[in-house]
Amino acid sequence: ALIAVLPGDGIGPEVVEQGTRLLKAVAERFSHSFELVEAPMGGAAIDLTGSPLPPETLALCQRADAVLLGAVGGPKWDPPAKVRPEQGLLALRKELGLFANLRPVTPVPSLYDTSTLKPEVLRGVDLLVVRELTGGIYFGEKRREEDRAFDACVYTVDEVVRVVRAAAVLARARRKRLTSVDKANVLETSRLWRSVTERIVSEEFPDIELKHMLVDACAMHLIKRPADFDVIVTENMFGDILTDEAAMLSGSIGMLPSASLGANRRGLYEPIHGSAPDIAGRGVANPYGTLLSVAMLLRHSLGLEQEARAVEAAVASSLDAGVLTADLSAPSTRPAGTREVGGSV
Amino acid sequence: ALIAVLPGDGIGPEVVEQGTRLLKAVAERFSHSFELVEAPMGGAAIDLTGSPLPPETLALCQRADAVLLGAVGGPKWDPPAKVRPEQGLLALRKELGLFANLRPVTPVPSLYDTSTLKPEVLRGVDLLVVRELTGGIYFGEKRREEDRAFDACVYTVDEVVRVVRAAAVLARARRKRLTSVDKANVLETSRLWRSVTERIVSEEFPDIELKHMLVDACAMHLIKRPADFDVIVTENMFGDILTDEAAMLSGSIGMLPSASLGANRRGLYEPIHGSAPDIAGRGVANPYGTLLSVAMLLRHSLGLEQEARAVEAAVASSLDAGVLTADLSAPSTRPAGTREVGGSV
Ligand SMILES: CC(C)[C@H](C(=O)O)[C@@H](O)C(=O)O
Ligand SMILES: CC(C)[C@H](C(=O)O)[C@@H](O)C(=O)O
Repeated sequence: ALIAVLPGDGIGPEVVEQGTRLLKAVAERFSHSFELVEAPMGGAAIDLTGSPLPPETLALCQRADAVLLGAVGGPKWDPPAKVRPEQGLLALRKELGLFANLRPVTPVPSLYDTSTLKPEVLRGVDLLVVRELTGGIYFGEKRREEDRAFDACVYTVDEVVRVVRAAAVLARARRKRLTSVDKANVLETSRLWRSVTERIVSEEFPDIELKHMLVDACAMHLIKRPADFDVIVTENMFGDILTDEAAMLSGSIGMLPSASLGANRRGLYEPIHGSAPDIAGRGVANPYGTLLSVAMLLRHSLGLEQEARAVEAAVASSLDAGVLTADLSAPSTRPAGTREVGGSV
Repeated sequence: ALIAVLPGDGIGPEVVEQGTRLLKAVAERFSHSFELVEAPMGGAAIDLTGSPLPPETLALCQRADAVLLGAVGGPKWDPPAKVRPEQGLLALRKELGLFANLRPVTPVPSLYDTSTLKPEVLRGVDLLVVRELTGGIYFGEKRREEDRAFDACVYTVDEVVRVVRAAAVLARARRKRLTSVDKANVLETSRLWRSVTERIVSEEFPDIELKHMLVDACAMHLIKRPADFDVIVTENMFGDILTDEAAMLSGSIGMLPSASLGANRRGLYEPIHGSAPDIAGRGVANPYGTLLSVAMLLRHSLGLEQEARAVEAAVASSLDAGVLTADLSAPSTRPAGTREVGGSV
């Protein structure tokens, strides 16, 4: 299998390094051969080539079975800069047709203490957000005039159909409950979203229990009764906000993996945290989100379920053994470094 | 002073009844004369007149010094219904030019237990969200075609200027820290928002410390370190989501008041909770959000600061005395009813 490795910016290279170590360990242990090819992306690619997604990087990703990404962005390339790292990430998602972004949130009991939520609220939380990733206001027309700015939010029926299907299939393999999140009392795109979701689930997934929830109510319930959720499906911008919020159930955003999938098996895997320029290069970043992204890569793109479970089990034991980076550990204890976590897993 | 009273739908009438009781008590105690005039709005108005904001209701509000609103909406008028209660609320905000929506969040120590967040996280939380209320994707052009839907998000420089100014003036009277929330790495409207905010604060409010934060990061920090915030200013849709999330710091959304202000003193005051059709008519709804909205009404529209403080003090003692509705009380205790809270305050 060919795996494209895009370290990106900030702490990206550090966490991705642990991801590739893990992939090599899995290859050896289970006698697979993974070809890992690195390429520049994001701010690093802007500095090197002027473009956040150079044609060679895109071509490599298109050829690959899976892409492992660190993180992109940093103050160096912030607006008003015209060329920005995020454009590379958005273009990559679009070019690869990765319309379904899976963000599972399953707080580990040994980390309950690191969350700002009470442990009794976290008990039983096992939710999966499926975020639409190539439509909505992210990709609609944008305009800037002297005294005004404009962003278009557009959704087609087909765009809604495919992501709702993906979410319903995932719900079927879980607790069979799907919550579709929109703002149908205000947005036309949300009313389309709601009616399409209603139709697809009732026609094709009669065994799935569907509920609609307004995005503001969902932002509340994620904190109030997170254990009530099974699979949440929502549009691009709402998914961006709600998944970062939900990440807090896990104590640290550094824990959370993600998979971005399209019509075929090829996928992009990345921790949901950002490039954290403030701690970059110090070897203290939390690589668990990347390691769990590797598990998702093995499962969804390579079809290696057993190997994925082995990685998840290794992460669980490492957490249980108390190998915790600074974002996870009590102020008085000695935190583990990025490589130490990688080694432990 | 003329105060328009719009009970609205669901629990709206019950909580507003306690609000008018409170206004009458304030009038008597402080020798003011308030003329309270009731009018239909939302679903109730649709049933009565076919329109969620009848011309007579709008005219009354335009004549009034302040408007006290309960809540609007309910399953009876949900999409696919063409005429919906929310349209009345959005039209009222727009017609009265209420561009700045103030939503303070100050969890009370005696209610820390009712929040799902740990008490040590809530200590010191005293934040105010100023949400832009008459622009953005709420009011942009909407279109629906056979196989697609479209919502436009537009902001003009003037729209950003006036709400940022309002927020900065409020920050000046508080801890002088302003966090502007946007998604400048993706949206053109956010880049406009950020540059205008930057300019207004540096030119007119050099004493205010301004920080920019991405909306996804803000959704996280509201749960991780809510005490870090003073005033948050943001656009309409982000404000909708973030304020419902922030409401959870107070244990129950039923606690939270809001004020919607424009260029003059006239304002609209409403609890931020919805119409809660599931508990409507049972006399169990939490009226504290409405009572605190009355305090904001006295302060911002009538200029009665002393009276506003008296109301806030009365609410605080009532909470300290343990007069708590069902949403606030432990399962084993007897909750207070809506009128009981009103009476106590
Ligand atoms: C970097 C940014 C464009 C991106 C997004 O908003 O999608 C990030 O926040 C994410 O969630 O992956
Ligand atoms: C009822 C709805 C249109 C409204 C909004 O989204 O503004 C409500 O959620 C609010 O926050 O006041």
